[in-house]
This record gives sequence, structure tokens and C-alpha cells, in this order.
Amino acid sequence: MGDAHDFYERAMELHRKHGGKLELTSKVPLKTKDDLSLAYTPGVARVCEEIAKNKELARELTIKKNTIGIVTDGSAVLGLGNIGPEAALPVMEGKAILFKEFAGLDAWPLCLDTQDTDEIVTTIRALAPGLGGINLEDIAAPRCFEIERRLQDLGIPVFHDDQHGTAIVVQAALINAARALNKPYTKLKVVLSGAGAAGRAIAHLLTCFADDDSLGAVCSAIADVIVCDSKGAIYQGRPGNSEVKEALAKKSNRGGAKGSLQDVIKGADAFIGVSKGDLLSQADVETMADKPIVLALANPYPEIRPEQAHAGGAGVVGTGRSDYPNQVNNVLAFPGVFRGALDCGATRITYAMKLAAATALAECVENPTPELILPNPLDHSVAKKVAKAVAEAWTIGEQLKKELGR
Amino acid sequence: MGDAHDFYERAMELHRKHGGKLELTSKVPLKTKDDLSLAYTPGVARVCEEIAKNKELARELTIKKNTIGIVTDGSAVLGLGNIGPEAALPVMEGKAILFKEFAGLDAWPLCLDTQDTDEIVTTIRALAPGLGGINLEDIAAPRCFEIERRLQDLGIPVFHDDQHGTAIVVQAALINAARALNKPYTKLKVVLSGAGAAGRAIAHLLTCFADDDSLGAVCSAIADVIVCDSKGAIYQGRPGNSEVKEALAKKSNRGGAKGSLQDVIKGADAFIGVSKGDLLSQADVETMADKPIVLALANPYPEIRPEQAHAGGAGVVGTGRSDYPNQVNNVLAFPGVFRGALDCGATRITYAMKLAAATALAECVENPTPELILPNPLDHSVAKKVAKAVAEAWTIGEQLKKELGR
Repeated sequence: MGDAHDFYERAMELHRKHGGKLELTSKVPLKTKDDLSLAYTPGVARVCEEIAKNKELARELTIKKNTIGIVTDGSAVLGLGNIGPEAALPVMEGKAILFKEFAGLDAWPLCLDTQDTDEIVTTIRALAPGLGGINLEDIAAPRCFEIERRLQDLGIPVFHDDQHGTAIVVQAALINAARALNKPYTKLKVVLSGAGAAGRAIAHLLTCFADDDSLGAVCSAIADVIVCDSKGAIYQGRPGNSEVKEALAKKSNRGGAKGSLQDVIKGADAFIGVSKGDLLSQADVETMADKPIVLALANPYPEIRPEQAHAGGAGVVGTGRSDYPNQVNNVLAFPGVFRGALDCGATRITYAMKLAAATALAECVENPTPELILPNPLDHSVAKKVAKAVAEAWTIGEQLKKELGR
Repeated sequence: MGDAHDFYERAMELHRKHGGKLELTSKVPLKTKDDLSLAYTPGVARVCEEIAKNKELARELTIKKNTIGIVTDGSAVLGLGNIGPEAALPVMEGKAILFKEFAGLDAWPLCLDTQDTDEIVTTIRALAPGLGGINLEDIAAPRCFEIERRLQDLGIPVFHDDQHGTAIVVQAALINAARALNKPYTKLKVVLSGAGAAGRAIAHLLTCFADDDSLGAVCSAIADVIVCDSKGAIYQGRPGNSEVKEALAKKSNRGGAKGSLQDVIKGADAFIGVSKGDLLSQADVETMADKPIVLALANPYPEIRPEQAHAGGAGVVGTGRSDYPNQVNNVLAFPGVFRGALDCGATRITYAMKLAAATALAECVENPTPELILPNPLDHSVAKKVAKAVAEAWTIGEQLKKELGR
């Protein structure tokens, strides 16, 4: 506890010292009257007039070219829950420095003092002119689904990282875990614990529920995923299913399995946890298939401790923590996804782009082993590779649409 | 024209090269796993928890401490008019680099895709948690008045620079022009051309229409100002007066003067123009009092060219232009005003703070002469002096309120 206490004191000290982790700097000189006349009035008027004639030029001549808004309502921050927009700021600032460090993007925290879906949507629409993309962050389900859906026509990418960023990294982890164990990926029997924002997005991405009109579809989907919540396996017509869960049930659990997590995990090749700590025991892992994959991502306390998972026979174990091997960390996805989207002028993040990101991320590890299924979160080459794949996926999709006259 | 063409091409080239004049940088290191754990998860969680317990701590531990939102709806940009939020971006970016250069503040452009008063107010309210202050910019009158008024309870300073920034610099210019000419400032007979956002604010500040509850009031007010619009002097009950103009008439033009600008300017000690180019002739200046003060601030074409004003006998001439002496430039006010407000934790910009800013700005010129009534806009010491005066005015006001039990 002494160490943990010291660690958190150091974190507080860092924040006290700087009073905010971000600052703005000018990219242009401002020392002489001439500098001032070019960057501000009267010279700037000419730039304004050009954009007034063709507002697409804002993507070339202004901060819109390289700016991401990190939008939260503070309702589902880390594992801390609904702590509000002020308390969410340190996380969003941290996210912003990751955007800069790994993708060179200028991301600004926009912590909103409203948890009303309509107001959040209206506010984001109002802010769009100065932004190249929107990263939704730490917004509670099911509100986050509606907000993202309603903003897909905004003309700039709107991407909820807690859903799709997590799903991309989980898919990459699963692909490489299967490679490390020499198991055929598409035939994995997967049980997923957690039916919130992340769980739903993981189920969608793994099984290729393309819910947008992306072309260039996919032959690498996993046949089936069973999603569990605190009441066990989610199936069609389960009493008390919300609209969201019923929709999820329609596209997962094709065998209609019922029962607890412990019931349905028997014989499974992979467990993915995005739920809460200590849900799974060593004995549960022992009931799974030979050398199962266990991705226990609840933070800071995983669904099962890696030591126990290994004792139960797990072939590959990953967590969200940096103090164990195979850290599943969103920083491996979101910087590259947005970099790629802005580089190619994408107006949305399509299903094909997410899949391309997961595939490219998996390929960053040349020879996966049980102890190494994902690259180091501090590896700066990852975002570049992900960005390239994401931009290509968008461009191919657009070309296909043109050829098909859509 | 060749020179002007080259100049505007250089402005375009500057903006093409950089694609946005601002960038974000991290104030904290992010090279090791330890760096990442302190600035982001899991260390950041502790900082979030502290702010969740007491959200005032956001002013110490987050970007809120030093961040200004520059909010526009793109409806009244420079002299270009209603060019929209995208085309307004280059101006707001320019403003942001001025905030940084002169006051060390991190100001972020928020160019809104709405010109609906309610939506603008709602959006700004939603954005407040991450901001230390709001600079309203280039929003058309009368919408700008209502927006500013409705946001005075926000808990952070909301200041419309086109109104109050301009008024502060004009007042400083007028104080020093009077000093340079050895005329008693409070007895100046002033005629103001332009009843928009700037004109109204100048009239208010010069004549001490404290429309807030600021204490520490003022004995340095000018007795009267006559405000003219395109139809001439504004007086109470003038046919067709808008609500705003009727309110202005109630507090200005105490003699009830009627007639054109040319009529009412006769015998005036000072002309202030915030209207449009070429409204005033040499002959008009000749009808004014001896050695009148002419501040012709329309940009880029002033109400009268300085050469003509001098030919008409003007004692002091100022414009908005950098190529003549006595440039009246808002950059002399807004950085210091916001720096002072954030330094003292002010929740509003009171009348007393504006007056303190104007007085401190005037005092930056030790011995005013007809050719030197304001400091150089690139003088970095100005914002510091203005900030100090602004912070003191707030603090004195708060102390007075406490003593009076308000």
C-alpha cells in the first residue's frame, strides 16, 4: 500500500505542478508587425474570403486539418463512473497527449456539462466546423450508441473509442493469440462477459455485423460469440432484455445457449471480459477447451488474475494492465485510426476501416507467442501502420461505391 | 496594387504551409511506461477522484486553469460580415496566438455552426467545465448583447471583445489624447459614429453606465456622448429606434441633439468612429472644437484619412491601422483582461475591471504626445500591467461586497 500511495501522490504532484497537461503553441512567428499582419489582420482576411467561397478549404488552411475533439459528458469515466465533466478533464487531457505523441494530432478536451442526448448531439454539431474528427469518450451506454449513430452524417469521423477502439485492439489480440496457439481464428468459440459499450462493439466487430453500408466486406468473421451480462448468456426473448440487448441477441449466440457465464464457458476457446473483477475462477478456466485464450480486461481488477488463469490451463492471457504481459490498451488503435481517417479525408469510420485497423495492428507482431500478442503501447511505429491500413480501407470503399454507382 | 497582391499571397502561403496556426503540446513527458501511468491510467484516476469530490480543484489541476474558449458564430467577422464558422477560423486562430504570445493563455477557437441565440447559449454552457473564460468574438449585434448577458452567471468570465476590448482601448486612447492636448478628459464633448456592438460598449464605458452591480465606482466618467448611426444622432423617441437604440438614447445625448453627424459634430472635442469608411470630411473636422481628437477606427478604410483629419486641424488622430501612428488595437486589452481575470479567479468581468484596464493601459504611456497615445501593440509589458490592474479591481470589488454584506 505504501507503494500505491506514493504512486498516486506522484500522479497528484504531476498534475499540481503543471495545472493541466496540455498547452497551445503557435506554429507561426509573431515577433514583428509584419508577422502580425500576415497571421492576423489584415492578411488573414484573404484566407477567410477564400474559405467563405469554398468551405472545404478549411481542411487545408485551418486547424480543422489536424484537430480532434475529445467529447465526454463525464458519465462513465474509467472505472469511476458518473463523476461529471470537470473530474473527467484529467483523463481527456491524457488522451489528448496520447493523440499528439502517437499520431501528431491536436486533440482538445470538450467536457460537456450536460448528459442529455439531444443537447450532446446539438453541441457536437455546433462544434464541427473547427474539428477534423470527434472522439467520443467515457459516455455511458446506451446513450453513447444513439449519440454516435445520430452523428454519422456530420461529414467528419465520429468514433466512440470505448466501443470501437477497444474492439479493434481485442480483435487484434484474439487474432494473434490464435496464431500463437496455432488455432484457426474464425472457428474460435468465444464467450464475452460484459454487454455494455465495449462488449457490444467487440461482438459486432468479431462477427462482422456490419451495421453501416461499408463495402469491401469481410470473410474473416468469427462464426459465433456468446455475450453474457450479470444474468448470464443473452439470448433472443430473454425476459427483461432491453432493446439493445435484444438486438445483440439477434446477431449473437446463434445456438441459443442459456445459463450462467460458468455454464456457457464450458468448452469455449476464448474468454473476453469487459465487465468487472473476479468473475472467473481457475476452475472455470479448467472447463474451457484446451489451452484457452483469456482476455480479462476489467481494470484495475481483471475478471481473473493472470496467475489463476494460467493455473487453470490458459494458453494465452491478456489484461488491461501494464504490469502483466499482453496489455490490451486502446492507445494501440485510436491514434492510428484518426490519423488514417484525417489523412484520407474520410467522412466516417466504416466497418471496413475498423477491421483494417485490427488486422494491421495484429500484423505489427511478426511472430506472436503466448507472451507477446500485441506490440508495446509505446511503440511509435504502430499508429503509422494502422493509419495506412485505415486510409486504404476508406479509399477502396469509396472506389467500390463509385464503381457500383452508389 | 502589386504590393497588396503580394502581401495577401504571402498571407495565403503562410496558411497553406502550416494548415492551421495552432498546435497542442504536452507539458508532461510521455516516454516511459511510468510516464504513461502517471499522466494517464491508472494514476490519473486519483486526480479525477479529487476533482469529483471538489470540482473547484479543476481550476488547479486541469487545463481549466489557463484555458479560454474563443467563441464565434461567424456572423460578423472583421469587415467581411456573415461568412460562417469555417471562414472565421483563421481569425480565431490568430486571436489564439495573440492570447498565448501576450498573456501565456491557451485559447482554443470554437467556431459554432449555429446562429441561433438559444443554441449558442446552450452550447457555451455545455462547454464551460473545461474553460477558464469565454471570449465572444465576431458575433453580430444585437444577438451578441443577449448572449453575453445570459451567460454572466456561468461562473467564469464571459467577455465580448468586439464590445469591451474595443471600448477599453478607445477609452485609454481618449484619456491620453486629452493628456497630450492638455484638455480636461471628463469635460470632453464626444461624438461617436456607429451604434453597433463596439459603439454601444464605448458609450457605456466612457460615460460610466455601470449595468452590472460592480462596486468601486468611478468618478472619471465623461459627462455626455452623442451616438450617431446612419440616420444621424440617436435620441429618445426617435422614430424607428430599436429596443437597443432606445436604451442607448436614454443614457446618452443628454442634450437631446438631433440631426446628422455633420450637424452634431460641430464644436465637439472628439470624434470616435466605429462605423465605416469615408463618413467624415476635412470640412467636418474644421467645424469641431480647437485641435479636436479624431479616432477613425473603421478598418481597413477609416471614417476619414489621417491626412485629411490633420488638414482639418485635428490635434490627435488615431486609426485601427498599423501603418499610421496611434493604432487602436484590441490586442492591447484582451490578453491582459483575461490574464488578470484568471489570475484572481474572477467569475465575471465587472465594469470596474474594464475601467481599471483602460486606466492601466493609458498609464503605459508615460508622456503622451499627439503622435503617441497608445503603446506599441507588440509591447509585451502591457498585458502584465493591464492584468495586474484588472485583478486588483476584482479583488477590491469582492472585498467591498463582503464589507457591505452583499
